[in-house]
Amino acid sequence: MKLIRFGEVGNEKPGVQLEDGTRIDVSAFGQDYDEAFFGGDGLERLSSWLESNASGCPKITDTARLAVPLVRPSKIVCVGLNYAKHAEEAGMAIPKEPVLFFKATSALVGPNDDVVIPKGSEKTDWEVELAIVIGKKASYVEKEDAYNHIAGYVLHNDISERAYQIEKEGQWCKGKGCDTFAPVGPFIATKDEIPNPNNLNLWLKVNGKELQNSSTSDFIFNVEEVVSYISQFMTLLPGDIISTGTPFGVGLGFNPPIYLKPGDVMELGIDGLGVSKQVAKAYNG
Amino acid sequence: MKLIRFGEVGNEKPGVQLEDGTRIDVSAFGQDYDEAFFGGDGLERLSSWLESNASGCPKITDTARLAVPLVRPSKIVCVGLNYAKHAEEAGMAIPKEPVLFFKATSALVGPNDDVVIPKGSEKTDWEVELAIVIGKKASYVEKEDAYNHIAGYVLHNDISERAYQIEKEGQWCKGKGCDTFAPVGPFIATKDEIPNPNNLNLWLKVNGKELQNSSTSDFIFNVEEVVSYISQFMTLLPGDIISTGTPFGVGLGFNPPIYLKPGDVMELGIDGLGVSKQVAKAYNG
Repeated sequence: MKLIRFGEVGNEKPGVQLEDGTRIDVSAFGQDYDEAFFGGDGLERLSSWLESNASGCPKITDTARLAVPLVRPSKIVCVGLNYAKHAEEAGMAIPKEPVLFFKATSALVGPNDDVVIPKGSEKTDWEVELAIVIGKKASYVEKEDAYNHIAGYVLHNDISERAYQIEKEGQWCKGKGCDTFAPVGPFIATKDEIPNPNNLNLWLKVNGKELQNSSTSDFIFNVEEVVSYISQFMTLLPGDIISTGTPFGVGLGFNPPIYLKPGDVMELGIDGLGVSKQVAKAYNG
Repeated sequence: MKLIRFGEVGNEKPGVQLEDGTRIDVSAFGQDYDEAFFGGDGLERLSSWLESNASGCPKITDTARLAVPLVRPSKIVCVGLNYAKHAEEAGMAIPKEPVLFFKATSALVGPNDDVVIPKGSEKTDWEVELAIVIGKKASYVEKEDAYNHIAGYVLHNDISERAYQIEKEGQWCKGKGCDTFAPVGPFIATKDEIPNPNNLNLWLKVNGKELQNSSTSDFIFNVEEVVSYISQFMTLLPGDIISTGTPFGVGLGFNPPIYLKPGDVMELGIDGLGVSKQVAKAYNG
């Protein structure tokens, strides 16, 4: 099943993308994709409901805006430096255990929304990532059991301001949580659609030129290890997002580095999780 | 006005603590203390509503559990090393600009709830802090305007696991976001009650012995500077919590360090913001 949300900001509704690509409005199901949905067997209930109700659901027009495919979660936990060659291009050591940081949930935007370059920023960068959506509360979960706590997967562009992240005092959150820095979607694919999340091709183009192209088979820490590891430090709640890190090919890694300018177009995709496209815009408060 | 919430986890209701200390249930007002409340002039509406309805509100029994005095916000942004003498005891340099990190909102607990020492943890520590509650969306706010974006203030114990925070790979979030690591309350005092947040005494005792005692007049970056600074990196939403850092006297600073053991009792307070009390418990999954 592919979960989408659509409509203008502040008036977003749940939908489903069917196997033939048709997108339908499932507002009549009566529940949006939030913590209560994921934690309360919402996927199973929606799936059954669709069997008898899908044909009666309104179709969504092709011009409708796609929103973040879930309601704002409690947290977005990100794994840093989870591909060896990316750690190298970032000039950082290969980590012995997952590096974690949080992204502000206020950074979430739809998959094709504009990315706003912060006021005065000169180092806004891209990062295609596989993100996990938690389906069941996870605390002190073993690797072997991690899969049972996953609802599905979604494409994420972990936009990063490198001067804010690395050159400012302290922690990375300054460069990771800016507004619009988390385009997520187009859809959440439930885990049954992605038999092996640790072997998916992922890529990102800027202005048509492919700059990232790798596979999650290059993960230092795979999906099960990451879920288990994070759950040793905090409870993951249903709907929480874990972003698993980006491969080689970010702007920071070029010599000299290449960063986003207003008008630049990012397109990105992962096997089975669709594609998204964002245009970089100058801040215009 | 002093906002409280009360009741068992999962069934928490909004209340108000009156000037004489009486606590009343304001469920009849019809709105809990969430983003829509703070962002939609909820404080003003509640205050007017109380003028004619306070006397009819049920009193809350003294034995009722106090909950976090607001609904789970989008984020908790913390300032690190915001008192010079604490930076020194932590063995870190005095920052030239605020050090920021996020605390997982899943760490929030009521002011008198137990603090759970994570499984295998040996370095769980305390940090009394003044926290700010945002009242109005804040993006690129000037210092001079920061006060207009504040709803009020609340007492926070920024519990920290030092091995997870400092000895693990990467960012501080591993040691800051563990479940129960953010006891907040007893109440949010609206800003009119705290004429100068930059001159408040704050203290913390462990097992009756005072280990922290300082004043927010020792801030490196004051309340207005902190709100303005964070808003340059991300939008602060109504209900978001900013915790302003802890003064000298945490367990890490002792020689040898002193950390929490099961049964230890923390009591803490800030002028005008009441006191809270937590008992440290062993993890018992």
